[in-house]
Amino acid sequence: MSLPHIILAAHGSRRTESNQEVRRLAEQLGAGLDGAQVRAAFLEFEKPTIADALHACGREGAESVMVVPYFLAAGRHVTHDLPAVITETMQKHPQVKVRLLPHLGAFTDLSQLLLGRLFTTLGTPQTRQFALR
Amino acid sequence: MSLPHIILAAHGSRRTESNQEVRRLAEQLGAGLDGAQVRAAFLEFEKPTIADALHACGREGAESVMVVPYFLAAGRHVTHDLPAVITETMQKHPQVKVRLLPHLGAFTDLSQLLLGRLFTTLGTPQTRQFALR
Repeated sequence: MSLPHIILAAHGSRRTESNQEVRRLAEQLGAGLDGAQVRAAFLEFEKPTIADALHACGREGAESVMVVPYFLAAGRHVTHDLPAVITETMQKHPQVKVRLLPHLGAFTDLSQLLLGRLFTTLGTPQTRQFALR
Repeated sequence: MSLPHIILAAHGSRRTESNQEVRRLAEQLGAGLDGAQVRAAFLEFEKPTIADALHACGREGAESVMVVPYFLAAGRHVTHDLPAVITETMQKHPQVKVRLLPHLGAFTDLSQLLLGRLFTTLGTPQTRQFALR
């Protein structure tokens, strides 16, 4: 059993630094997964495109590919564009299984994350009450 | 001391369901913050716009407003568009202090979140080794 190749599928930005944030994250994921092949790829503004990354996995003999949508909400990029590019691209690599995971926002309790941040900034309910006394 | 009004500033989507995800999150934040005024607002595709939400805070007599950028990476929307709309809009509400928080991706260890998800999907390193034996 070999690990799947992983594609961290991000929107992409005109700002190089923003795309670098995504690439660093892909490297951290690769390191955290015992050196698994993790690629950052982008829908817009930056290379490699999602199609580029899928083709690369196919050329490298990947048995399976897992696509992780690095998106907070399920907009058209998540519901339409990603499935469409996967379906089209993988016609050239019929031997590779591709699995599209839910987007980041779907499996993360973002309200808790944001509340944690807001409490840190505003003070917790306790410290706020204390400040109000 | 009154709580600031909070604006959850999202990109916005052509998909209603996606914008509803953001609105639900704003409601959860409001509930978690003892009923603080938390509004979802959008840069594109959906109303209210960020400017609409800022004007509303000003009209309602907010002393301070906290803008939380609901973005994973610091692209132009975060580094340019949000500061620009805040600066322009608040010229009409000089009495209101506005604080722009870092974007979500900046204060969250996303690599750990994603690794957690990938381990769940792939099996942990331990269970993978076991499967390979």
